[in-house]
Amino acid sequence: MGLRSLGVAVAGLGRIGRVHSEILAYRVEKARLVAVMDVVEELARSTAERFKVKAYTDYDSMLKDPEVDAVFVTTPTYLHHDMIVKALEAGKHVFTEKPITVTADEAVDVVTRADRAGLKLMVGYMRRFDDAYSEAKRRIASGEIGKPVAFLNVARDPGAPPGWAQDPKLSGGIFLDMLSHDFDMARFLIGSEVKRVYVSGGAVLYDEIKAKGDLDLVNVSFEFENGVYGVVHGSRKSVFGYDLRTEVLGTEGTVYVGSAVDPNLAVGVKSGVVLRGVQWFWARFYEAYVREDQAFVDSVLNDAPPPITGLDGLRVVEVAEACWRSIQEGRPVEVVKRL
Amino acid sequence: MGLRSLGVAVAGLGRIGRVHSEILAYRVEKARLVAVMDVVEELARSTAERFKVKAYTDYDSMLKDPEVDAVFVTTPTYLHHDMIVKALEAGKHVFTEKPITVTADEAVDVVTRADRAGLKLMVGYMRRFDDAYSEAKRRIASGEIGKPVAFLNVARDPGAPPGWAQDPKLSGGIFLDMLSHDFDMARFLIGSEVKRVYVSGGAVLYDEIKAKGDLDLVNVSFEFENGVYGVVHGSRKSVFGYDLRTEVLGTEGTVYVGSAVDPNLAVGVKSGVVLRGVQWFWARFYEAYVREDQAFVDSVLNDAPPPITGLDGLRVVEVAEACWRSIQEGRPVEVVKRL
Amino acid sequence: MGLRSLGVAVAGLGRIGRVHSEILAYRVEKARLVAVMDVVEELARSTAERFKVKAYTDYDSMLKDPEVDAVFVTTPTYLHHDMIVKALEAGKHVFTEKPITVTADEAVDVVTRADRAGLKLMVGYMRRFDDAYSEAKRRIASGEIGKPVAFLNVARDPGAPPGWAQDPKLSGGIFLDMLSHDFDMARFLIGSEVKRVYVSGGAVLYDEIKAKGDLDLVNVSFEFENGVYGVVHGSRKSVFGYDLRTEVLGTEGTVYVGSAVDPNLAVGVKSGVVLRGVQWFWARFYEAYVREDQAFVDSVLNDAPPPITGLDGLRVVEVAEACWRSIQEGRPVEVVKRL
Amino acid sequence: MGLRSLGVAVAGLGRIGRVHSEILAYRVEKARLVAVMDVVEELARSTAERFKVKAYTDYDSMLKDPEVDAVFVTTPTYLHHDMIVKALEAGKHVFTEKPITVTADEAVDVVTRADRAGLKLMVGYMRRFDDAYSEAKRRIASGEIGKPVAFLNVARDPGAPPGWAQDPKLSGGIFLDMLSHDFDMARFLIGSEVKRVYVSGGAVLYDEIKAKGDLDLVNVSFEFENGVYGVVHGSRKSVFGYDLRTEVLGTEGTVYVGSAVDPNLAVGVKSGVVLRGVQWFWARFYEAYVREDQAFVDSVLNDAPPPITGLDGLRVVEVAEACWRSIQEGRPVEVVKRL
Repeated sequence: MGLRSLGVAVAGLGRIGRVHSEILAYRVEKARLVAVMDVVEELARSTAERFKVKAYTDYDSMLKDPEVDAVFVTTPTYLHHDMIVKALEAGKHVFTEKPITVTADEAVDVVTRADRAGLKLMVGYMRRFDDAYSEAKRRIASGEIGKPVAFLNVARDPGAPPGWAQDPKLSGGIFLDMLSHDFDMARFLIGSEVKRVYVSGGAVLYDEIKAKGDLDLVNVSFEFENGVYGVVHGSRKSVFGYDLRTEVLGTEGTVYVGSAVDPNLAVGVKSGVVLRGVQWFWARFYEAYVREDQAFVDSVLNDAPPPITGLDGLRVVEVAEACWRSIQEGRPVEVVKRL
Repeated sequence: MGLRSLGVAVAGLGRIGRVHSEILAYRVEKARLVAVMDVVEELARSTAERFKVKAYTDYDSMLKDPEVDAVFVTTPTYLHHDMIVKALEAGKHVFTEKPITVTADEAVDVVTRADRAGLKLMVGYMRRFDDAYSEAKRRIASGEIGKPVAFLNVARDPGAPPGWAQDPKLSGGIFLDMLSHDFDMARFLIGSEVKRVYVSGGAVLYDEIKAKGDLDLVNVSFEFENGVYGVVHGSRKSVFGYDLRTEVLGTEGTVYVGSAVDPNLAVGVKSGVVLRGVQWFWARFYEAYVREDQAFVDSVLNDAPPPITGLDGLRVVEVAEACWRSIQEGRPVEVVKRL
Repeated sequence: MGLRSLGVAVAGLGRIGRVHSEILAYRVEKARLVAVMDVVEELARSTAERFKVKAYTDYDSMLKDPEVDAVFVTTPTYLHHDMIVKALEAGKHVFTEKPITVTADEAVDVVTRADRAGLKLMVGYMRRFDDAYSEAKRRIASGEIGKPVAFLNVARDPGAPPGWAQDPKLSGGIFLDMLSHDFDMARFLIGSEVKRVYVSGGAVLYDEIKAKGDLDLVNVSFEFENGVYGVVHGSRKSVFGYDLRTEVLGTEGTVYVGSAVDPNLAVGVKSGVVLRGVQWFWARFYEAYVREDQAFVDSVLNDAPPPITGLDGLRVVEVAEACWRSIQEGRPVEVVKRL
Repeated sequence: MGLRSLGVAVAGLGRIGRVHSEILAYRVEKARLVAVMDVVEELARSTAERFKVKAYTDYDSMLKDPEVDAVFVTTPTYLHHDMIVKALEAGKHVFTEKPITVTADEAVDVVTRADRAGLKLMVGYMRRFDDAYSEAKRRIASGEIGKPVAFLNVARDPGAPPGWAQDPKLSGGIFLDMLSHDFDMARFLIGSEVKRVYVSGGAVLYDEIKAKGDLDLVNVSFEFENGVYGVVHGSRKSVFGYDLRTEVLGTEGTVYVGSAVDPNLAVGVKSGVVLRGVQWFWARFYEAYVREDQAFVDSVLNDAPPPITGLDGLRVVEVAEACWRSIQEGRPVEVVKRL
């Protein structure tokens, strides 16, 4: 490849956008953070100042910047499709935060366009780069637990997502906004696609989520094409912190990832021994974000397929759409592959 | 009450029958073990000798023994119905090991007969008497975790059941022989009935189980009448020991019962820190059996309803039958109440 | 050996005496519980009734009973010496609860007498028969952790012992009444004798213990003859339950025994995830007592040395006496072997 | 204070020096990394290039740089004294990695000079800034566990330190090079000074450590001025990773910090359930280093005492010197305060 390093810009400077900015500025080899962009001028300005890069408030202007080789799309989901399309049209490689888009139609569109344009498109399911999850993948792939037969996942967020993410029309709802992480992990660890889903659940935790038509507690039962049986349990509430645990049962063993508690502090008092929950998301996954961003930069510089492709992103949207149909129709639903 | 103590006999001297015999002989107040019965003469003789009680090889003869006030039915499931009926006809109170019978028809019959005869009929779901499970029940009932919204259960046995229990016509199959414990626990902790089930799974672990038409790996998704959502995951294999864990998510907290490992021994070597699985079923539940048997004896002597009634037993058979229909028809199935 | 089974009597019917009685009555093969004895008539009578054996209130009378082949001495420590001597003089084998006696002089006396009389004398350090501790012993002996180099032990009781055991003249104090378990375990796991001890600590938890001249918080640093370095930390207080943990560091690994918490119940609430401490001593060690009593009965019937001899009991008293000298003189003290 | 931001230089670019450089370059507010220095030219050059700062191979030249307001001394311990002295003479504030110096004489000298010069001198015991340790401190200080009565610490490194650190004349030996972290933590959590120590231990793990006259396995028993009793157990070997655990027993509870295992990955196979040890030191403590460096920068800019002073550094050296005397003389030794 001709490029010695990659000029990157981050568009959307909410929390996750600022994390990617920081990582791209300091931690990723052969990346040069050259610009950040947000429609909130003060946010664009202060972030740019912190990293000594250009500030944009207009996405189109940023895309014209010749120093920008690749764009990180870190805006709310409902903006992804149009922003990815524009970036591709401007000849930029794209890293988009998960999920790729709100609908499968949109996902098909951006995947097709990226292919046609010969540009990289990667989707940010950072758990794949987490030390424990990637070691789990290695152990499973090595045959240590025999042939996988079941995948189980408990995912409980500490609280409801704010604002736009409560509206399924903007976020894709719980299956896409929250559980797409878990479906992607299922595909990653099992190495097969989800072919049928059945969902039960409801909006039983938050009135505002119910009002918007989303769900906040679901059990998704599913089957993979290779015969493995899966369950994803998702809840938008866990009062003591993140409770994220994954297990894969094989014919010769079981892999467990994640813990409901932080083992590093326990206080024994009369009522028992109290452990802390996992309070800070970034503490667990920061290094995963670093490796993820490095992997994207490497894939562009080496002209290699990114480790999580647009097609991976589409697959998960297809699963989420099947989940929505299942809960609406009260029956198991086949996942339809669009590409 | 007239009776100062209860004369009991144990019919069926496999492992569980010998455990009940030992407990009734030594640990239960106001119980007098007076006889044991098994068609294998040597088993009947040696067990009787150990506890210094009468040995029978013929069930009908045992039922004529006037010292026997109550019978413990601890034979394979397919014998339960007829043995319970005969005991009731002989005017004996009955404790039956789980599950109550193979079919709901049979369960309706024995429940109806016990009611009509005014005799006690209790079913042995001993987990309810386990220290951790009963404390969990107390905590949930006290409101400590708010309103329950989800029930999750992982149940993995170390290996396939031997002989008759692999044949669903004799044992009721995995839903009844193994997972009826979990469905009973679901009803106990949530305090509501299962109204709809959806099952995915198969026979993927053992050829002999597949040959008999049973399943060895299932995910059961279900809903309770009170709106709680549940999942029971069951596997007939877990290479390192029993892996039984239950959790109830509430609006204000989560209760976890059970552990995949015994924390009392860990060995750190180059490959990591190795903990033992839970090897010996009885070590965890022996005291639960003692409390269970005491509860039955007390209910007879005090003429009070047993803590787990024949109707409880029937409810679980109804759920299991719905599970079988669900897997056969590939759709969610309503649980039909027979009484 | 001529004896087909062993007639045993239990003298001293406090909690531990009743546990041994129950175990000897029901759980030990080739043992016949024939009598129980306590100076409290009602206790002797009710216990005897429960097990359908003879009741004695007078120890000397019990010793004349020809059905009694062996005596279990389960009285307060300060009574051990005289009771053991009398039993030996009456030709009875003796199992004594720990510690063997209050002083090393007394221990030398009973060990010498038992040897001379050719009668068995066993001391009840039941932890050696615990599943986790005995497995730890096997693992260490097998070389799995290489050569042991350090032994660490944390022993915290939930509260102060009642009455007589707070008086070091009657109980031997914390080193003998409580920590002799830990010193015996150190000798058992390391397979060597303690040669030097240094103690720091005080009476900082309970005024009544301070008033009696005992200690309630101690750190004992010691060295084994084979060069292993040890620490025993003991506390008479742990507000959430027993906190007993042992570890052995080897050149190739580490063995950990015990857990501060019971993993079988956890409740996640706003303040964190609360686990229960280990509340019930017997739950952990009941089966160890069964195996211990069986081992004593077997040793008598097979005329084999008991697994924990009077000499083992003496060794621990010698360590405890060195501990007392160390704290009084503020210096490390060599352990003097008396036999 | 007049300074709007602090110009810092890092002298000594081994692993810990590069970590501080990275943190000062990217993560610390109001810090400007202006220079790095190492006698290995290539190391100085490549590090400087990475952070776009000046490279020095000569310490004296670096001290003349007017942009440098403060120096981070991150060289081997035996170089600390002279480098701190020179920095103070050049009018620079100093952050030194632990331990402050090899001897108490040296520590007295640098503390006295810093005081006289009115310059800040901070010592890097970063554990104080770890999330779990600082929360433990808050809980203890709040009275949640009543009055502290005992401090216990297990510190096991995965392997022997390389090169110079094996020589006690250069590193201060195990008590200073390794366990000074633990003594500092003891002082921090208990809020009192160590007044007497007793050490047993030896060089039993590594021949090369024995050859240099250092120890690799020690048990330090000690007493605080406020009556709390402590133990620090240290080992230079733990085959599966770092094993660092601290506990403080109080009259009303117990605080536990640290875990021998990473709970985020477990693999259940026939031999049991295998958890990983804690492999990567930085994963646990990276954020603690960030907060530590921020605290130093803030203390200079606000002209406030640093949270860990030169006197703190001296106190720990005094304890280490008492430990050496104790092991040499085989007796408890009083800690002598030099300032």
